Amino acid sequence: MTAYPFVPALREPQGSPIRELFRYLSDPEMISFAGGYPSAALFDAEGIGAASAQVLRDRPAECLQYGATEGAPALRSALVALMAERGAVVAADELLVTTGSQQGFDFLVRTLVEPGSVVLVEEPTYPATLQALRLAGADVRGVPADHEGMDVDALEAMLADATLRPRLIYTVPTFANPTGATLTLARRLRLLELVARYRVVLVEDDPYGALSFDGPPPASLLALCAQVPDARPWLVHLASLSKTLAPGLRIGWMIAAPEIVRRAVIAKQVSDLCTPPWIQLTAAQYLQAGRLPGQVATEVAFYRDKRDRLAAALRAAFGERIRFALPAGGMFLWAALDGVDDASTLLPHAISEKVLFVPGTGFYAVRRARAAIRLSFAGTDAAQVDEGVRRLARAAARLDAVTKAGG
Amino acid sequence: MTAYPFVPALREPQGSPIRELFRYLSDPEMISFAGGYPSAALFDAEGIGAASAQVLRDRPAECLQYGATEGAPALRSALVALMAERGAVVAADELLVTTGSQQGFDFLVRTLVEPGSVVLVEEPTYPATLQALRLAGADVRGVPADHEGMDVDALEAMLADATLRPRLIYTVPTFANPTGATLTLARRLRLLELVARYRVVLVEDDPYGALSFDGPPPASLLALCAQVPDARPWLVHLASLSKTLAPGLRIGWMIAAPEIVRRAVIAKQVSDLCTPPWIQLTAAQYLQAGRLPGQVATEVAFYRDKRDRLAAALRAAFGERIRFALPAGGMFLWAALDGVDDASTLLPHAISEKVLFVPGTGFYAVRRARAAIRLSFAGTDAAQVDEGVRRLARAAARLDAVTKAGG
Repeated sequence: MTAYPFVPALREPQGSPIRELFRYLSDPEMISFAGGYPSAALFDAEGIGAASAQVLRDRPAECLQYGATEGAPALRSALVALMAERGAVVAADELLVTTGSQQGFDFLVRTLVEPGSVVLVEEPTYPATLQALRLAGADVRGVPADHEGMDVDALEAMLADATLRPRLIYTVPTFANPTGATLTLARRLRLLELVARYRVVLVEDDPYGALSFDGPPPASLLALCAQVPDARPWLVHLASLSKTLAPGLRIGWMIAAPEIVRRAVIAKQVSDLCTPPWIQLTAAQYLQAGRLPGQVATEVAFYRDKRDRLAAALRAAFGERIRFALPAGGMFLWAALDGVDDASTLLPHAISEKVLFVPGTGFYAVRRARAAIRLSFAGTDAAQVDEGVRRLARAAARLDAVTKAGG
Repeated sequence: MTAYPFVPALREPQGSPIRELFRYLSDPEMISFAGGYPSAALFDAEGIGAASAQVLRDRPAECLQYGATEGAPALRSALVALMAERGAVVAADELLVTTGSQQGFDFLVRTLVEPGSVVLVEEPTYPATLQALRLAGADVRGVPADHEGMDVDALEAMLADATLRPRLIYTVPTFANPTGATLTLARRLRLLELVARYRVVLVEDDPYGALSFDGPPPASLLALCAQVPDARPWLVHLASLSKTLAPGLRIGWMIAAPEIVRRAVIAKQVSDLCTPPWIQLTAAQYLQAGRLPGQVATEVAFYRDKRDRLAAALRAAFGERIRFALPAGGMFLWAALDGVDDASTLLPHAISEKVLFVPGTGFYAVRRARAAIRLSFAGTDAAQVDEGVRRLARAAARLDAVTKAGG
């Protein structure tokens, strides 16, 4: 081993717990509820290909040359229009195109977080967020959450603690990863009041908001800022086309105060300089052509059906033994089984039965609740859902047998 | 102003000195020697478009779904083959696809640099490198360079200084930005011996190497590692298709020891997760189709002609007053004018005459030599070169008049 002077967070590199499961996906018999991938069967390759060919034909130099770090003007305009449809008035200098919304969070971390800075994240949360914060040397503290999202009373107690002074608060308030939970309106308003009062940057990560199964999605924290004085400067909204159009395009965007955007632009200059302009113009063309609403409607119908099917199959297989709240959108169902105190003990049995899920522990910064599992209903077809749940039931039976034998 | 707790490097955000000049580019009468952009007139939009359409047709899900953070296997194989043509044997686990080669440097910084870490850069150097290091809080020290590249004696003195212990050394050894200089073979071998002896990571940034005007390009530091025992683990090679195919694709790659690549993958997971797979597959298809060598030959002929034309025009306009070394490749000519001690005083006159260049000061971390200017010959056509130099001569005459009047 060569003795490289790696930064502390990378001396013992830890990959994502989900990535660890990837190697099992090469088994063609495996049914996976593990990934956070949208269904490739739904991709509008034809519409995307047509948009791409058109912009390359019409504006080859703009597609292939370096572009502005802030993003292509055509895409920024299209995204401002999209945000207006979602109830948020956004100025051009409040919007930065990012290479996936994950990159927007990374820029925020670089802009606001130093080694030792306290950052509050709702728990459980998105593992890559935890990884980004660990890499930056942040002191990550968990804020508890339940089926109605972040516990704002607990948050307030942490904000009132003068020893903490967090640099950032991170939440996925709508159809959260991993829990599927949605923050209630009352909590949304309270959360905005808190960040205005305590003057702390709040990150609303919103990749799933458009995938609302039961009517229009709830108003985003960004849209609700209009109702809460002084909240808007503290709110950073991250969004993406990954879950609605296609993740492979890597098109995300950040909406924040111009002072924050200006710093994020500098972080982007030292990172990828600009998101590939050709893809930006392709996305702009696609949005302007008005194809997104129909595409989203197709996805919503498909995912809603999968959610219902998964919930019914779980109820049929596990009866009262399984506990979960039905997600109102997104891709994830978060469940716990009575008698399974540590879901990672269930995983090897599931792998033997050729079904994958993600044990809950990887989604925690601190608390490490062990019982829950994350099931994605986005990447499987109906028959796979049914068969996958049967396999899960067999895996649980195997674990029960081992537990009984050992206990 | 809202009092955000920005990290120290961003409290007073400083953009790139080149970016500052962008606003003048909207003037259609402006002739620019300022940008580091390749000529858009040369882009092979047809070949790129055909490759893109083919991979989307053949492998839509792979194009549009999330991809492996390390890069698409097809592109990694194509890049390993490209590096073999360039004289370097590279294993798959030594190669990471990046969203432009700038991103590779960014990952290295995240992997190896902490606030206060010493980093050595040849001076003058690429401004975005300086910006990335400043953002990371590095203690940047300049290593002098001349028309034969980095001064390896000066470097050795710094490496021997036990108080410095640099985490990284950064160089653009071939057709450097901004100087156009190329490190001699003797210095290359000595540099590799030094990093092997002092056990310090050396970054070879090689965006321009393929653009060699006078015969094949010099052997890269990476290729020369085969001749220097123990050097290879310390060498990180960054390369890109930006200057040979198209910058808008944002396809770069890093070649490094597997231990370093593994950490860079974690940095990429928290950044953009993966470089857009569709573009990766497009680039792989383009490379496999064998179109790159012809494209590079076209560019080399075009840029060589421009270099010659610019050099001749400068000599004709300024005679013995101008000093420069003829670059053997790349895009830049670095010049100084007798009687102009600070090129930033020439710039306003140049802007009045509607010609742009980049004053040399922005390329220095420390030394701040003021006399030189960087002229890019890549983005102008022949008539613009001639007219641009005439304007530059008029700007110099204006400055002379002011200097005389003031002195």
